[in-house]
Amino acid sequence: MHDLAQRLWPITRSITGQGVRDTLKIIKEHIPDLAIMSVPSGTQCFDWVVPEEWVIFDAFIEDESGNRIVEYSQNNLHVVGYSTPVDQWLDLEQLQAHLHSLPSQPNAIPYVTSYYERGWGFCLTDEQRQSLKPGRYRAVVRSTLHPGELNYGELILRGDTDQEILLSTYVCHPSLANEISGSVVTAAIARLLRAANPRKYTYRIVFVPETIGSIVYLSANLARMKEKTIAGYVITCVGDERTYSYVPSRHGDTLADSVAKHVLHHLSGKYEAYSFLDRGSDERQYCSPGIDLPVASVMRSKYDSYHEYHSSLDDLTLVTPTGLVGGFLAYAHILECLEENCYPKVTVLCEPSLGRRGLYPTRSTGRIGWQTLTILHVMAYSDGSLSLLEIADRIGEPMWKLLPIVAQLFDEGLLVLNTAIGHCG
Amino acid sequence: MHDLAQRLWPITRSITGQGVRDTLKIIKEHIPDLAIMSVPSGTQCFDWVVPEEWVIFDAFIEDESGNRIVEYSQNNLHVVGYSTPVDQWLDLEQLQAHLHSLPSQPNAIPYVTSYYERGWGFCLTDEQRQSLKPGRYRAVVRSTLHPGELNYGELILRGDTDQEILLSTYVCHPSLANEISGSVVTAAIARLLRAANPRKYTYRIVFVPETIGSIVYLSANLARMKEKTIAGYVITCVGDERTYSYVPSRHGDTLADSVAKHVLHHLSGKYEAYSFLDRGSDERQYCSPGIDLPVASVMRSKYDSYHEYHSSLDDLTLVTPTGLVGGFLAYAHILECLEENCYPKVTVLCEPSLGRRGLYPTRSTGRIGWQTLTILHVMAYSDGSLSLLEIADRIGEPMWKLLPIVAQLFDEGLLVLNTAIGHCG
Amino acid sequence: MHDLAQRLWPITRSITGQGVRDTLKIIKEHIPDLAIMSVPSGTQCFDWVVPEEWVIFDAFIEDESGNRIVEYSQNNLHVVGYSTPVDQWLDLEQLQAHLHSLPSQPNAIPYVTSYYERGWGFCLTDEQRQSLKPGRYRAVVRSTLHPGELNYGELILRGDTDQEILLSTYVCHPSLANEISGSVVTAAIARLLRAANPRKYTYRIVFVPETIGSIVYLSANLARMKEKTIAGYVITCVGDERTYSYVPSRHGDTLADSVAKHVLHHLSGKYEAYSFLDRGSDERQYCSPGIDLPVASVMRSKYDSYHEYHSSLDDLTLVTPTGLVGGFLAYAHILECLEENCYPKVTVLCEPSLGRRGLYPTRSTGRIGWQTLTILHVMAYSDGSLSLLEIADRIGEPMWKLLPIVAQLFDEGLLVLNTAIGHCG
Repeated sequence: MHDLAQRLWPITRSITGQGVRDTLKIIKEHIPDLAIMSVPSGTQCFDWVVPEEWVIFDAFIEDESGNRIVEYSQNNLHVVGYSTPVDQWLDLEQLQAHLHSLPSQPNAIPYVTSYYERGWGFCLTDEQRQSLKPGRYRAVVRSTLHPGELNYGELILRGDTDQEILLSTYVCHPSLANEISGSVVTAAIARLLRAANPRKYTYRIVFVPETIGSIVYLSANLARMKEKTIAGYVITCVGDERTYSYVPSRHGDTLADSVAKHVLHHLSGKYEAYSFLDRGSDERQYCSPGIDLPVASVMRSKYDSYHEYHSSLDDLTLVTPTGLVGGFLAYAHILECLEENCYPKVTVLCEPSLGRRGLYPTRSTGRIGWQTLTILHVMAYSDGSLSLLEIADRIGEPMWKLLPIVAQLFDEGLLVLNTAIGHCG
Repeated sequence: MHDLAQRLWPITRSITGQGVRDTLKIIKEHIPDLAIMSVPSGTQCFDWVVPEEWVIFDAFIEDESGNRIVEYSQNNLHVVGYSTPVDQWLDLEQLQAHLHSLPSQPNAIPYVTSYYERGWGFCLTDEQRQSLKPGRYRAVVRSTLHPGELNYGELILRGDTDQEILLSTYVCHPSLANEISGSVVTAAIARLLRAANPRKYTYRIVFVPETIGSIVYLSANLARMKEKTIAGYVITCVGDERTYSYVPSRHGDTLADSVAKHVLHHLSGKYEAYSFLDRGSDERQYCSPGIDLPVASVMRSKYDSYHEYHSSLDDLTLVTPTGLVGGFLAYAHILECLEENCYPKVTVLCEPSLGRRGLYPTRSTGRIGWQTLTILHVMAYSDGSLSLLEIADRIGEPMWKLLPIVAQLFDEGLLVLNTAIGHCG
Repeated sequence: MHDLAQRLWPITRSITGQGVRDTLKIIKEHIPDLAIMSVPSGTQCFDWVVPEEWVIFDAFIEDESGNRIVEYSQNNLHVVGYSTPVDQWLDLEQLQAHLHSLPSQPNAIPYVTSYYERGWGFCLTDEQRQSLKPGRYRAVVRSTLHPGELNYGELILRGDTDQEILLSTYVCHPSLANEISGSVVTAAIARLLRAANPRKYTYRIVFVPETIGSIVYLSANLARMKEKTIAGYVITCVGDERTYSYVPSRHGDTLADSVAKHVLHHLSGKYEAYSFLDRGSDERQYCSPGIDLPVASVMRSKYDSYHEYHSSLDDLTLVTPTGLVGGFLAYAHILECLEENCYPKVTVLCEPSLGRRGLYPTRSTGRIGWQTLTILHVMAYSDGSLSLLEIADRIGEPMWKLLPIVAQLFDEGLLVLNTAIGHCG
């Protein structure tokens, strides 16, 4: 995963343009059946219109001696996203109105975009900005804004049922490592899912530009997604090593939420549980009224909560192999819980006679061991009305630790599935 | 308001009699359409009978030298409410059986009534009582108890709908300032409501003697009140500066409760939230089984919780202009929340494109401001099933701070009213 | 009760056999209408089969000099329950495989059984075990395992309704005092109930061997018990003085749970509230899926929570007259709450005029007393939808303190029963 992150990190992405296409192509190398889709500029999607495509060729600031002080070719964060073309001499004071820096983080280049107001600008460290001497500067942006297309990637992995799980990540940020970590982990999860056979559920996995991309996607697929989606996640900021975080769905009590909380509780007792008020990525769209999809988000450090956020400090030292594996593991457990969840129902009245099945200690010395106790607990709660996830929550064990026990009880005929309850049959 | 309190404070009120009528007449000067009603003694009201009317002319205790030691004309708390006529010489020991004082507050004259057992008595400071010398004393009460009437004031302010909000206060206590503060604030609120045009709701505002008055009123108006009342409050003890207090309705989760808690939370984070077990005024009747009105009480310091309560110390130094304004403000906010509450519903799928409406920051630098964030939050929760009050509670903002934003969103056509939900349409 | 405990304590009980029969016969002396029932070995009960009957005549270990080092006749815990016959010389090393002791409690003889794997063994203090010298030992167990019967006691006390309350205790442990305390207290409670006339409910009181006994009993009586049982308790470990404990039913919110928590809260603010995960006695069967009886357990120190548990230290110094009375009192209060629970409903609108009934203080001096306040609270919550137990919980008083007040209000005609609500009519 870190190799893929290193390939994706340098690309200049925006909500449209070549960077998105290059990114999707590299991801497609890992998941060949990824469909790369396009929607023309000007297409109306709910309250929005697909914007013109932005292509950036070069951008720099020169001083009077021809020294390039700020160069897009050295760091694509130097140019404000969607900057319009310019080639103009300005004195320092005029130039300042087009510069962005972070006085509180003087060695960071900030990430700035201006999607919905036309203009141009440059980002630089505050240290460099403070060192600029009065004088004349030439600002050059070689870009185009023209009717083009918006691109996204879509992978549908069909399962035994047409009930769907949505995984959504975004591909619109330039060299910001924890932002692109979502695509890296999602690609790895997609490979895991492709290898899993059979799958109970159908997986809808999308790589979209944030906000406009999910709106475009929803406007094209809403009816089916509303009908079929049983859980979904926005995957982003899953590459650092600091913590785990969770942003709930709007309703906060969907299957996506229960599973997310269950997994994070057992992976890391002290994860950060945010409020829906803290949402900031595409759950803003998936959970909006009338859309109402059961979509939550599980992250490592949440966007906007770490000091490297949206600056050149968010690089591949923040995002590490260990961090990515942690993000991957959380989602692997989440999907295992979703796939394996079911409504077990005991076939015998009273506790079964475990002794004659070799499942009970033969002597009454000492305490009943974990295995036997867990069998008894699973049986005690398997009344057909509680899901295995709910049973695991009551027992206080991670669901994945119960799976071998449950399998044994199914084999013994002591449990059957309650197929009367819908999506987990 | 403090001026009105100064006029009302000295009047000798009881549950019936001239004091109540005088009080209602003064209030009517402020709200001319107040109807002053009367119900004859002996009228059966549910389990109760309207009592005889008590008129007090004079009362005093003289010593053998003819010195008046206790004089009703100096402080109307000196005579026990509903005292029967007497003119009798007693020695000190006999007299003691008719005296009331507060050993724990030696300089306070207590407030005592004896509505349902005939007799007479005097109240005095414990200091004075301790200084009484053995000897003969003449106790004189010049009063009458005779079939008369019970009076109350009623003001109906019609609104756009016939759904009603009940405001109830009482007019039966003599010179006790925080008791009469309820009438003072209610009169000011009534003036505010009369000036408000249009009003969504109809307001039923009553000035009744406590307990028997609300029972009399309910017995005459129950059917309509049960059908129409969406929220109500008992207004009392709203004149001191110490704190805010809240007594819930019996069910504790009515609209009256939600609004009261919302307002007090935002006016004063640390108000006193009492239990229904602590009730003590006319919510005892309004919330009784079979009546079941959604009536709570918002106060400054709750009756029975401050040391001046029911004694001569409860005067116009305890009840201040600032204290009264605080009581008024709480109710003004409560009524604003009730009037403005509604069920907003978004008209677009996904978040609206705020950028093209000038409602979104044009650059992605820094955090989204309070205004934009609040627009997004309001939109995210406006699914037509949550009231604006509930939305404000989720966002953690006072509802009145949301009103300009909501008005703007209605103007933009981004929100409409969900008129399918009843009383707030 | 302590006398009965002293008679029952020495008997060698197991899940079948003479010890159980002897125990039931002694209990029958106290409750003559106890029916002693038998079920033949080999009977299929749900997933279980009634085991062969075990009879133990003698057991000992001798050294080469003929000294008996371990003698069943001195303490019946010395022999492992269900030991098969043996008469064999072994050297110490071989013998060790058949010995059980508690290194952490070197002066305690542990209690060990081996119901479902055939074999033999001895229990002794770890002190004694450590003192054994290398050499030859003769191990003798004179026992039989043969088709016989399983016995239990059943007492049905009919009440005004056929709705039932289940009391279940077990009679299968040898000389362990806090285990047999359940039978002692249950016998005393049964005597109390027999004397109570009329009884609202029918009582089903059973003395069964743990686990297999309750399974046998359920298999014979399930349909009726499911239809009629409104609450039940497993009575065990009710004889020490240390604390009160509560194990909930599986659902945790049945009438049995509410009453148990109510009683323990008022008997002892700081009782131990366990989880259903901590269950360990016959609630394992009564609460299993498909059985689903509303059965909880109220104890003094819960099994498995005290260091004397399942060893020779659990004797009649741990179980005391005071401890037993405490256990008895808890169940007496529980049954009083169940019997007296009802849905009261006021007959008047608004508060009643208590003054003319002599139920209200005649003067307004001082606070309203506890009695009057409690009358008002009971009336305020008696809307016909809340049970007296729920009303007591809201008021914060033990239900038994409300009973005289409620009786008075029924007498005054201020309350009637809401017979529309089922089992407490």
